[in-house]
Amino acid sequence: MSSLPRAIDFYFDFSSPYAYISAEWIDALAARHGRTVNWKAILLGATFQAAELKSPVAYPIKREYSMLDFERSARFAGVPLKMPEAFPIATQNAARVFWFLADQDAERAKQWARLCLRAYFARGVNIGDAAQLRALAEDFGLGGEAAEAVWNDTVWKLRLKAENEAAIAAGVFGAPFFVVDGEPFWGNDRRPQIERWLEKGPF
Amino acid sequence: MSSLPRAIDFYFDFSSPYAYISAEWIDALAARHGRTVNWKAILLGATFQAAELKSPVAYPIKREYSMLDFERSARFAGVPLKMPEAFPIATQNAARVFWFLADQDAERAKQWARLCLRAYFARGVNIGDAAQLRALAEDFGLGGEAAEAVWNDTVWKLRLKAENEAAIAAGVFGAPFFVVDGEPFWGNDRRPQIERWLEKGPF
Repeated sequence: MSSLPRAIDFYFDFSSPYAYISAEWIDALAARHGRTVNWKAILLGATFQAAELKSPVAYPIKREYSMLDFERSARFAGVPLKMPEAFPIATQNAARVFWFLADQDAERAKQWARLCLRAYFARGVNIGDAAQLRALAEDFGLGGEAAEAVWNDTVWKLRLKAENEAAIAAGVFGAPFFVVDGEPFWGNDRRPQIERWLEKGPF
Repeated sequence: MSSLPRAIDFYFDFSSPYAYISAEWIDALAARHGRTVNWKAILLGATFQAAELKSPVAYPIKREYSMLDFERSARFAGVPLKMPEAFPIATQNAARVFWFLADQDAERAKQWARLCLRAYFARGVNIGDAAQLRALAEDFGLGGEAAEAVWNDTVWKLRLKAENEAAIAAGVFGAPFFVVDGEPFWGNDRRPQIERWLEKGPF
Protein backbone atom coordinates (compact mmCIF):
# COMPACT_ATOMS: atom_id res chain seq x y z
CA MET A 1 0.00 0.00 0.00
CA SER A 2 1.20 3.43 -0.90
CA SER A 3 1.42 6.04 1.82
CA LEU A 4 1.24 8.87 -0.69
CA PRO A 5 -1.95 10.88 -0.41
CA ARG A 6 -4.02 10.28 -3.46
CA ALA A 7 -5.29 12.92 -5.82
CA ILE A 8 -8.85 14.22 -5.61
CA ASP A 9 -10.94 13.77 -8.74
CA PHE A 10 -12.93 16.90 -9.57
CA TYR A 11 -15.59 16.56 -12.28
CA PHE A 12 -17.02 19.77 -13.69
CA ASP A 13 -19.10 21.08 -16.58
CA PHE A 14 -18.32 24.53 -18.01
CA SER A 15 -22.00 25.47 -17.70
CA SER A 16 -22.45 24.54 -14.01
CA PRO A 17 -22.48 27.52 -11.60
CA TYR A 18 -21.87 25.26 -8.60
CA ALA A 19 -18.90 23.68 -10.39
CA TYR A 20 -17.52 27.16 -11.07
CA ILE A 21 -17.75 28.05 -7.37
CA SER A 22 -15.99 24.79 -6.45
CA ALA A 23 -13.30 25.40 -9.06
CA GLU A 24 -12.36 28.52 -7.09
CA TRP A 25 -11.65 26.64 -3.83
CA ILE A 26 -10.83 23.00 -4.50
CA ASP A 27 -7.11 23.37 -5.33
CA ALA A 28 -6.31 25.57 -2.33
CA LEU A 29 -8.19 23.23 0.00
CA ALA A 30 -6.44 20.18 -1.41
CA ALA A 31 -3.02 21.86 -1.18
CA ARG A 32 -3.55 22.64 2.51
CA HIS A 33 -3.82 18.89 3.03
CA GLY A 34 -0.96 17.85 0.76
CA ARG A 35 -3.30 16.67 -1.97
CA THR A 36 -3.51 17.37 -5.66
CA VAL A 37 -6.59 17.65 -7.85
CA ASN A 38 -7.35 15.93 -11.15
CA TRP A 39 -9.73 18.17 -13.04
CA LYS A 40 -12.09 16.35 -15.38
CA ALA A 41 -14.24 18.31 -17.82
CA ILE A 42 -17.46 16.48 -18.61
CA LEU A 43 -20.82 17.23 -20.21
CA LEU A 44 -23.66 17.17 -17.72
CA GLY A 45 -26.03 16.39 -20.57
CA ALA A 46 -24.34 13.01 -20.96
CA THR A 47 -24.36 12.14 -17.25
CA PHE A 48 -27.96 13.34 -16.86
CA GLN A 49 -29.02 11.11 -19.73
CA ALA A 50 -27.23 8.08 -18.30
CA ALA A 51 -28.85 8.59 -14.89
CA GLU A 52 -32.24 9.52 -16.44
CA LEU A 53 -32.04 12.93 -14.77
CA LYS A 54 -32.68 16.44 -16.00
CA SER A 55 -31.03 19.70 -15.01
CA PRO A 56 -32.58 21.35 -11.95
CA VAL A 57 -33.25 24.39 -14.11
CA ALA A 58 -35.40 22.28 -16.43
CA TYR A 59 -38.13 22.42 -13.74
CA PRO A 60 -39.66 25.94 -13.53
CA ILE A 61 -40.22 25.99 -9.75
CA LYS A 62 -36.80 24.55 -8.98
CA ARG A 63 -35.24 26.86 -11.57
CA GLU A 64 -36.53 29.96 -9.78
CA TYR A 65 -34.97 28.85 -6.50
CA SER A 66 -31.77 27.71 -8.20
CA MET A 67 -31.17 31.03 -9.91
CA LEU A 68 -31.33 32.70 -6.49
CA ASP A 69 -29.23 30.01 -4.85
CA PHE A 70 -26.45 30.05 -7.48
CA GLU A 71 -25.66 33.71 -6.76
CA ARG A 72 -26.21 33.44 -3.01
CA SER A 73 -23.95 30.39 -2.78
CA ALA A 74 -21.29 32.30 -4.72
CA ARG A 75 -21.52 35.28 -2.36
CA PHE A 76 -21.32 32.85 0.57
CA ALA A 77 -18.10 31.43 -0.90
CA GLY A 78 -16.72 34.87 -1.77
CA VAL A 79 -16.73 34.12 -5.50
CA PRO A 80 -17.94 36.71 -8.05
CA LEU A 81 -20.89 35.33 -10.01
CA LYS A 82 -23.58 36.97 -12.08
CA MET A 83 -25.88 34.52 -13.81
CA PRO A 84 -25.32 34.90 -17.57
CA GLU A 85 -28.25 35.75 -19.82
CA ALA A 86 -27.63 32.63 -21.89
CA PHE A 87 -27.88 29.71 -19.48
CA PRO A 88 -27.36 26.84 -19.67
CA ILE A 89 -25.23 26.63 -22.79
CA ALA A 90 -23.46 23.93 -24.83
CA THR A 91 -19.92 23.53 -23.55
CA GLN A 92 -18.40 20.76 -25.62
CA ASN A 93 -15.98 23.09 -27.42
CA ALA A 94 -14.44 24.46 -24.22
CA ALA A 95 -14.27 20.90 -22.85
CA ARG A 96 -12.51 19.49 -25.92
CA VAL A 97 -9.87 22.21 -25.71
CA PHE A 98 -9.50 21.36 -22.00
CA TRP A 99 -8.65 17.73 -22.78
CA PHE A 100 -6.30 18.75 -25.60
CA LEU A 101 -4.39 20.92 -23.12
CA ALA A 102 -4.60 18.36 -20.30
CA ASP A 103 -2.65 15.84 -22.36
CA GLN A 104 0.25 18.27 -22.54
CA ASP A 105 0.11 20.03 -19.18
CA ALA A 106 -2.54 19.51 -16.51
CA GLU A 107 -1.86 22.91 -14.94
CA ARG A 108 -2.33 24.71 -18.22
CA ALA A 109 -5.62 22.87 -18.74
CA LYS A 110 -6.79 24.10 -15.33
CA GLN A 111 -5.83 27.65 -16.28
CA TRP A 112 -7.96 27.33 -19.39
CA ALA A 113 -10.86 25.98 -17.33
CA ARG A 114 -10.62 28.82 -14.82
CA LEU A 115 -10.38 31.40 -17.61
CA CYS A 116 -13.51 30.04 -19.31
CA LEU A 117 -15.52 29.61 -16.09
CA ARG A 118 -14.69 33.12 -14.88
CA ALA A 119 -15.40 34.60 -18.30
CA TYR A 120 -18.80 32.95 -18.41
CA PHE A 121 -19.93 33.33 -14.82
CA ALA A 122 -18.27 36.57 -13.75
CA ARG A 123 -18.15 38.54 -17.01
CA GLY A 124 -21.06 37.18 -19.05
CA VAL A 125 -18.94 35.96 -21.96
CA ASN A 126 -20.92 33.26 -23.80
CA ILE A 127 -18.37 30.48 -24.05
CA GLY A 128 -20.88 28.41 -26.03
CA ASP A 129 -20.49 30.89 -28.87
CA ALA A 130 -17.67 29.98 -31.27
CA ALA A 131 -16.53 33.56 -31.89
CA GLN A 132 -16.37 34.42 -28.20
CA LEU A 133 -14.56 31.18 -27.39
CA ARG A 134 -12.04 31.83 -30.16
CA ALA A 135 -11.39 35.27 -28.66
CA LEU A 136 -10.79 33.67 -25.24
CA ALA A 137 -8.36 31.22 -26.82
CA GLU A 138 -6.50 34.19 -28.29
CA ASP A 139 -6.26 35.83 -24.86
CA PHE A 140 -5.04 32.52 -23.49
CA GLY A 141 -2.20 32.34 -25.99
CA LEU A 142 -3.46 29.25 -27.75
CA GLY A 143 -4.86 31.10 -30.74
CA GLY A 144 -8.47 31.17 -31.91
CA GLU A 145 -7.93 29.14 -35.06
CA ALA A 146 -5.89 26.53 -33.22
CA ALA A 147 -8.63 26.18 -30.60
CA GLU A 148 -11.30 25.82 -33.27
CA ALA A 149 -9.23 23.17 -35.03
CA VAL A 150 -9.12 21.25 -31.75
CA TRP A 151 -12.85 21.36 -31.07
CA ASN A 152 -13.64 20.30 -34.64
CA ASP A 153 -11.16 17.42 -34.50
CA THR A 154 -12.64 13.93 -34.18
CA VAL A 155 -9.80 12.98 -31.86
CA TRP A 156 -10.96 15.43 -29.19
CA LYS A 157 -14.62 14.77 -29.83
CA LEU A 158 -14.00 11.11 -29.11
CA ARG A 159 -11.78 11.93 -26.16
CA LEU A 160 -14.51 13.98 -24.48
CA LYS A 161 -16.99 11.20 -25.20
CA ALA A 162 -14.66 8.68 -23.56
CA GLU A 163 -14.21 10.95 -20.53
CA ASN A 164 -17.97 11.29 -20.17
CA GLU A 165 -18.31 7.52 -20.30
CA ALA A 166 -15.56 7.08 -17.72
CA ALA A 167 -17.31 9.58 -15.44
CA ILE A 168 -20.61 7.75 -15.80
CA ALA A 169 -18.84 4.46 -15.03
CA ALA A 170 -17.39 6.11 -11.91
CA GLY A 171 -20.92 6.95 -10.73
CA VAL A 172 -20.89 10.64 -11.61
CA PHE A 173 -24.43 11.98 -12.18
CA GLY A 174 -24.00 15.72 -11.55
CA ALA A 175 -21.44 18.47 -11.10
CA PRO A 176 -19.40 19.35 -9.27
CA PHE A 177 -18.64 15.78 -8.31
CA PHE A 178 -15.61 14.85 -6.21
CA VAL A 179 -14.03 11.50 -5.48
CA VAL A 180 -11.69 11.49 -2.48
CA ASP A 181 -10.03 8.19 -1.56
CA GLY A 182 -12.79 6.40 -3.43
CA GLU A 183 -15.54 8.31 -1.56
CA PRO A 184 -18.04 10.23 -3.75
CA PHE A 185 -19.16 13.76 -2.84
CA TRP A 186 -21.73 15.53 -5.01
CA GLY A 187 -22.20 19.28 -4.94
CA ASN A 188 -20.44 22.48 -4.00
CA ASP A 189 -22.26 22.22 -0.65
CA ARG A 190 -20.32 19.09 0.30
CA ARG A 191 -17.25 21.28 0.92
CA PRO A 192 -17.48 21.02 4.74
CA GLN A 193 -17.63 17.23 4.52
CA ILE A 194 -14.68 17.11 2.13
CA GLU A 195 -12.73 19.35 4.52
CA ARG A 196 -13.44 17.06 7.43
CA TRP A 197 -12.44 14.02 5.37
CA LEU A 198 -9.13 15.64 4.40
CA GLU A 199 -8.45 16.74 7.98
CA LYS A 200 -9.40 13.63 9.89
CA GLY A 201 -10.03 10.88 7.35
CA PRO A 202 -13.16 8.78 6.81
CA PHE A 203 -16.15 9.51 9.04
CA MET B 1 -42.06 47.96 10.95
CA SER B 2 -41.68 45.49 13.75
CA SER B 3 -38.28 45.08 15.32
CA LEU B 4 -39.18 41.62 16.61
CA PRO B 5 -37.20 38.89 14.92
CA ARG B 6 -39.50 36.80 12.81
CA ALA B 7 -40.00 33.07 13.17
CA ILE B 8 -38.26 30.66 10.82
CA ASP B 9 -40.55 28.40 8.78
CA PHE B 10 -39.30 24.80 8.71
CA TYR B 11 -41.04 22.45 6.26
CA PHE B 12 -40.41 18.74 6.73
CA ASP B 13 -41.71 15.35 5.64
CA PHE B 14 -41.62 12.46 8.10
CA SER B 15 -39.92 10.29 5.46
CA SER B 16 -37.06 12.69 4.62
CA PRO B 17 -33.67 11.78 6.15
CA TYR B 18 -32.29 15.26 5.50
CA ALA B 19 -35.36 16.81 7.19
CA TYR B 20 -34.75 14.53 10.17
CA ILE B 21 -31.16 15.72 10.46
CA SER B 22 -32.30 19.36 10.27
CA ALA B 23 -35.00 18.74 12.88
CA GLU B 24 -32.18 17.92 15.30
CA TRP B 25 -30.44 21.31 14.94
CA ILE B 26 -32.86 23.97 13.72
CA ASP B 27 -34.43 24.92 17.07
CA ALA B 28 -31.12 25.24 18.91
CA LEU B 29 -29.64 27.32 16.09
CA ALA B 30 -32.69 29.60 15.99
CA ALA B 31 -32.70 30.01 19.78
CA ARG B 32 -29.05 31.14 19.74
CA HIS B 33 -30.19 34.03 17.56
CA GLY B 34 -33.39 34.86 19.44
CA ARG B 35 -35.59 33.26 16.82
CA THR B 36 -38.39 30.72 17.00
CA VAL B 37 -39.25 27.99 14.52
CA ASN B 38 -42.63 27.18 12.96
CA TRP B 39 -42.58 23.50 12.09
CA LYS B 40 -44.73 22.54 9.13
CA ALA B 41 -45.35 18.89 8.33
CA ILE B 42 -45.95 18.34 4.62
CA LEU B 43 -46.05 15.48 2.14
CA LEU B 44 -43.17 15.56 -0.29
CA GLY B 45 -45.30 13.56 -2.71
CA ALA B 46 -47.59 16.57 -3.06
CA THR B 47 -44.81 19.12 -3.53
CA PHE B 48 -42.94 16.85 -5.97
CA GLN B 49 -46.09 16.51 -8.04
CA ALA B 50 -46.72 20.26 -8.09
CA ALA B 51 -43.15 20.95 -9.22
CA GLU B 52 -43.11 17.95 -11.60
CA LEU B 53 -40.23 16.46 -9.64
CA LYS B 54 -39.53 12.97 -8.34
CA SER B 55 -37.69 11.86 -5.23
CA PRO B 56 -33.90 11.56 -5.69
CA VAL B 57 -34.22 7.93 -4.67
CA ALA B 58 -36.55 7.30 -7.62
CA TYR B 59 -33.44 7.40 -9.85
CA PRO B 60 -31.29 4.27 -9.31
CA ILE B 61 -27.89 5.95 -9.76
CA LYS B 62 -28.81 8.92 -7.60
CA ARG B 63 -30.42 6.58 -5.05
CA GLU B 64 -27.17 4.69 -4.55
CA TYR B 65 -25.30 7.90 -3.78
CA SER B 66 -28.13 9.28 -1.67
CA MET B 67 -28.29 6.22 0.59
CA LEU B 68 -24.58 6.75 1.34
CA ASP B 69 -24.95 10.51 1.73
CA PHE B 70 -27.94 10.33 4.10
CA GLU B 71 -25.92 8.39 6.68
CA ARG B 72 -22.70 10.31 6.08
CA SER B 73 -24.48 13.66 6.42
CA ALA B 74 -26.02 12.45 9.69
CA ARG B 75 -22.61 11.41 11.02
CA PHE B 76 -21.25 14.79 9.96
CA ALA B 77 -24.02 16.48 11.96
CA GLY B 78 -23.62 14.14 14.94
CA VAL B 79 -27.13 12.74 14.52
CA PRO B 80 -27.82 8.98 14.84
CA LEU B 81 -29.27 7.65 11.59
CA LYS B 82 -29.57 4.17 10.16
CA MET B 83 -31.51 4.03 6.91
CA PRO B 84 -34.69 2.02 7.58
CA GLU B 85 -35.43 -1.08 5.53
CA ALA B 86 -38.75 0.38 4.43
CA PHE B 87 -37.91 3.66 2.68
CA PRO B 88 -39.51 5.88 1.62
CA ILE B 89 -42.86 5.35 3.31
CA ALA B 90 -46.29 7.02 3.42
CA THR B 91 -46.34 9.56 6.22
CA GLN B 92 -49.76 11.19 6.04
CA ASN B 93 -50.92 9.62 9.32
CA ALA B 94 -48.02 10.99 11.37
CA ALA B 95 -48.47 14.36 9.64
CA ARG B 96 -52.21 14.57 10.38
CA VAL B 97 -51.54 13.87 14.05
CA PHE B 98 -48.87 16.60 13.93
CA TRP B 99 -51.38 19.22 12.76
CA PHE B 100 -53.98 18.04 15.29
CA LEU B 101 -51.43 18.61 18.05
CA ALA B 102 -50.11 21.85 16.56
CA ASP B 103 -53.51 23.48 16.87
CA GLN B 104 -53.39 22.90 20.63
CA ASP B 105 -49.71 23.31 21.43
CA ALA B 106 -46.94 23.92 18.91
CA GLU B 107 -44.26 22.59 21.26
CA ARG B 108 -46.11 19.33 21.80
CA ALA B 109 -46.49 18.92 18.05
CA LYS B 110 -42.70 19.31 17.71
CA GLN B 111 -42.20 16.66 20.38
CA TRP B 112 -44.42 14.31 18.38
CA ALA B 113 -42.46 15.09 15.21
CA ARG B 114 -39.12 14.43 16.92
CA LEU B 115 -40.42 11.20 18.47
CA CYS B 116 -41.61 9.91 15.09
CA LEU B 117 -38.51 11.02 13.17
CA ARG B 118 -36.16 9.46 15.71
CA ALA B 119 -38.22 6.27 15.88
CA TYR B 120 -38.08 5.90 12.11
CA PHE B 121 -34.54 7.01 11.35
CA ALA B 122 -32.65 5.96 14.49
CA ARG B 123 -34.58 2.86 15.59
CA GLY B 124 -36.12 1.48 12.42
CA VAL B 125 -39.75 1.82 13.58
CA ASN B 126 -41.95 1.92 10.47
CA ILE B 127 -44.11 4.96 11.17
CA GLY B 128 -46.02 4.30 7.94
CA ASP B 129 -47.45 1.18 9.58
CA ALA B 130 -50.69 1.87 11.50
CA ALA B 131 -49.95 -0.56 14.35
CA GLN B 132 -46.45 0.81 14.93
CA LEU B 133 -47.70 4.39 14.78
CA ARG B 134 -50.49 3.60 17.27
CA ALA B 135 -47.86 2.16 19.62
CA LEU B 136 -45.80 5.38 19.30
CA ALA B 137 -48.90 7.42 20.09
CA GLU B 138 -49.36 5.32 23.22
CA ASP B 139 -45.78 6.03 24.29
CA PHE B 140 -46.40 9.69 23.59
CA GLY B 141 -49.40 9.79 25.92
CA LEU B 142 -51.93 10.56 23.21
CA GLY B 143 -53.28 7.02 22.99
CA GLY B 144 -53.25 4.74 19.97
CA GLU B 145 -56.98 4.82 19.34
CA ALA B 146 -57.15 8.59 19.71
CA ALA B 147 -54.32 8.98 17.20
CA GLU B 148 -56.01 6.65 14.73
CA ALA B 149 -59.26 8.58 15.09
CA VAL B 150 -57.33 11.74 14.19
CA TRP B 151 -55.68 10.37 11.09
CA ASN B 152 -58.97 8.90 9.85
CA ASP B 153 -60.81 12.16 10.43
CA THR B 154 -61.69 14.21 7.35
CA VAL B 155 -60.92 17.38 9.26
CA TRP B 156 -57.23 16.49 9.59
CA LYS B 157 -57.07 14.98 6.11
CA LEU B 158 -58.25 18.31 4.72
CA ARG B 159 -55.97 20.25 7.02
CA LEU B 160 -52.88 18.43 5.80
CA LYS B 161 -54.04 18.94 2.22
CA ALA B 162 -54.41 22.68 2.89
CA GLU B 163 -50.95 22.81 4.48
CA ASN B 164 -49.46 21.08 1.43
CA GLU B 165 -51.14 23.60 -0.82
CA ALA B 166 -49.91 26.49 1.31
CA ALA B 167 -46.37 25.09 1.13
CA ILE B 168 -46.57 24.78 -2.65
CA ALA B 169 -47.86 28.35 -2.86
CA ALA B 170 -44.87 29.42 -0.74
CA GLY B 171 -42.50 27.86 -3.30
CA VAL B 172 -41.63 24.72 -1.35
CA PHE B 173 -40.53 21.87 -3.66
CA GLY B 174 -38.48 19.66 -1.36
CA ALA B 175 -37.57 19.05 2.28
CA PRO B 176 -36.19 20.29 4.50
CA PHE B 177 -37.15 23.74 3.28
CA PHE B 178 -36.61 26.85 5.37
CA VAL B 179 -37.92 30.39 4.96
CA VAL B 180 -36.01 33.00 6.95
CA ASP B 181 -37.16 36.63 6.65
CA GLY B 182 -38.78 35.67 3.35
CA GLU B 183 -35.58 34.08 2.00
CA PRO B 184 -35.88 30.42 0.90
CA PHE B 185 -33.23 27.84 1.79
CA TRP B 186 -33.59 24.29 0.52
CA GLY B 187 -31.75 21.37 2.08
CA ASN B 188 -30.01 20.33 5.27
CA ASP B 189 -26.77 21.44 3.59
CA ARG B 190 -27.88 25.08 3.60
CA ARG B 191 -27.22 25.18 7.36
CA PRO B 192 -24.03 27.27 7.04
CA GLN B 193 -25.86 29.85 4.92
CA ILE B 194 -28.77 30.00 7.38
CA GLU B 195 -26.27 30.48 10.21
CA ARG B 196 -24.61 33.36 8.42
CA TRP B 197 -28.00 34.95 7.67
CA LEU B 198 -29.01 34.73 11.34
CA GLU B 199 -25.66 36.10 12.49
CA LYS B 200 -25.16 38.94 10.04
CA GLY B 201 -28.37 39.35 8.08
CA PRO B 202 -28.90 39.16 4.32
CA PHE B 203 -25.84 38.50 2.16
